[in-house]
Amino acid sequence: MKSVNIKELARELKLSISTISKALHDSHEISAKTKKIVLDAAAKFNYIPHPYASSLRGKKSKTIGVVIPEVADSFFSLAINGIESVAKEKGYHVLIYLSHESFENEKNILQQFRGGRVDGVLISVSRETIKSDHINDLIADGIPLIFFDRVCDDVDTAKITTDDFESGYRAAEHLLKKQCRRIAFLSISYSLSISNKRLEGYLQAHQDYKIPADKKMIVYCPDDAKKNYTVIKKLLQQKNRPDAIIASVEKLTAPVYKACELLKLNIPKDIKVICFSNLVTASILNPSLTTITQPAFDMGKTAAKLLFRKLEKKNVSLKKENIVIPSTLIARSSTTG
Amino acid sequence: MKSVNIKELARELKLSISTISKALHDSHEISAKTKKIVLDAAAKFNYIPHPYASSLRGKKSKTIGVVIPEVADSFFSLAINGIESVAKEKGYHVLIYLSHESFENEKNILQQFRGGRVDGVLISVSRETIKSDHINDLIADGIPLIFFDRVCDDVDTAKITTDDFESGYRAAEHLLKKQCRRIAFLSISYSLSISNKRLEGYLQAHQDYKIPADKKMIVYCPDDAKKNYTVIKKLLQQKNRPDAIIASVEKLTAPVYKACELLKLNIPKDIKVICFSNLVTASILNPSLTTITQPAFDMGKTAAKLLFRKLEKKNVSLKKENIVIPSTLIARSSTTG
Repeated sequence: MKSVNIKELARELKLSISTISKALHDSHEISAKTKKIVLDAAAKFNYIPHPYASSLRGKKSKTIGVVIPEVADSFFSLAINGIESVAKEKGYHVLIYLSHESFENEKNILQQFRGGRVDGVLISVSRETIKSDHINDLIADGIPLIFFDRVCDDVDTAKITTDDFESGYRAAEHLLKKQCRRIAFLSISYSLSISNKRLEGYLQAHQDYKIPADKKMIVYCPDDAKKNYTVIKKLLQQKNRPDAIIASVEKLTAPVYKACELLKLNIPKDIKVICFSNLVTASILNPSLTTITQPAFDMGKTAAKLLFRKLEKKNVSLKKENIVIPSTLIARSSTTG
Repeated sequence: MKSVNIKELARELKLSISTISKALHDSHEISAKTKKIVLDAAAKFNYIPHPYASSLRGKKSKTIGVVIPEVADSFFSLAINGIESVAKEKGYHVLIYLSHESFENEKNILQQFRGGRVDGVLISVSRETIKSDHINDLIADGIPLIFFDRVCDDVDTAKITTDDFESGYRAAEHLLKKQCRRIAFLSISYSLSISNKRLEGYLQAHQDYKIPADKKMIVYCPDDAKKNYTVIKKLLQQKNRPDAIIASVEKLTAPVYKACELLKLNIPKDIKVICFSNLVTASILNPSLTTITQPAFDMGKTAAKLLFRKLEKKNVSLKKENIVIPSTLIARSSTTG
């Protein structure tokens, strides 16, 4: 059925737009009789209120914005499912915005939010994000914002993370106990909090096990599948090549496996591999992959629940909320032996 | 920097909201002097126009809505990248909405769009969608809509698809040529156009090769990972179990592999497997997976380009546009022999 807007409804009833609007909002300026005429016609002609108009009158948009770097990563798709499980129950819509790992994109997205398009924001920042003015500005505008997974440490709002330091430590410890002595750590960013915490854990494990960590084993991978492959291939071809790899993000799994295949390096005999990954295919890879599996769904759900607590009660403070949900190391064939 | 809204700007300048609004929109009713005062103050206090307000004045939202069943499927994440590659160039925002394979959700999302929140829509329908009133209503409201991948055949608008019939045919032919005689076809829907076309291709190949297709080999999998696993296990445990499987969607890959592992069925010796999949991990699975790989990025890009052609020129008709971009069969170890 076709719908009408307020202008068409006004024309139909030969009333002013202002009268229609007031009637629809039950204004005391409008008689009961006129209200009835307007409401009946609104139903009859399938009048749909303009969402922006409702928002202008100070109503809520009933929408939350979720800003993530990408969707081609099972962590984020699972986190979205967690967020939507809560939003659905609350009758809210979820809009997903992708920064594609670009700080400029992320700034533009947050700028849009300042006009009232969303009631609250859940964000996992891009790998390029170093400054946080764009985030502080949005919060200063009164729009509640919560970080999940990738946070800006200097912004004073709620953060839902996993135990990145401990996970980096556990991954390195798992390999050190198996006598690996040249463990490469593949990072995706010099600035991202999660990357640095995972790296710190890796370094701490080396210190505790009294194995010196070689700086040449810490490698940064760009946001480009082909370049990643080249970087990893080069790492594995060097004279003192690593005897193990910790890949700090899921999308490095395929290039690591492919580079090993090309160079005829047997996983796990010649080189052991652990990835931070929520891939459902981890257990059916050749060989099956040892993973640090993150509580993606729960992190999304927890972040959304906290946001709704804030949306429902103005006096809830997000400032001191720091929730850490632990990850799990799942040992499989890629680190056997 | 904190921003102000029009009300705060009016208070600051001791002018009416209406005067501010008219000045900001360069109305002839307002003097040049007042305009300058208002514009200077708007810049000084970081006034951000309300997006809904601009929209109310008949301006565009500069936003397109993308409705997809889920993001945990590499087809859709690649298609989104294709869509965003075009939208970015045009200075448009992309909002992603997930139906989670629910017809109710999909209807609610489209209902929201009727208020002017988006200028145009790209949709891939849920597996439950049989009726198309919600889509026809939106189009009748003047919001251009284009299908990609999963279409409603009865709606008269542009459709960007891949060659699903031919792909189903090619998959079955590949297995029939390898002497498979009991080829199971795993579908996800009785109604979805893509599922039915793939199945028709499968049936046609059987007919052309004069091999009768057994109806018991056509199995419907629900939208639930655990139940899928049970259904597939049961299929492989029956007396005349299949000697090959065609999985018509990516997410059936893991349960097929796991069920074979549990039942100690060797892929490809005991059973051959082909999946419709864009998984980057297809080549590193154990064994590497033969896939029908869809042109996901190109389909998204083509759909977006066509939508912008319509948004830029009112007289472009979407009715007769039917673009088919072919998929590719990539043979790997899961069908060797």
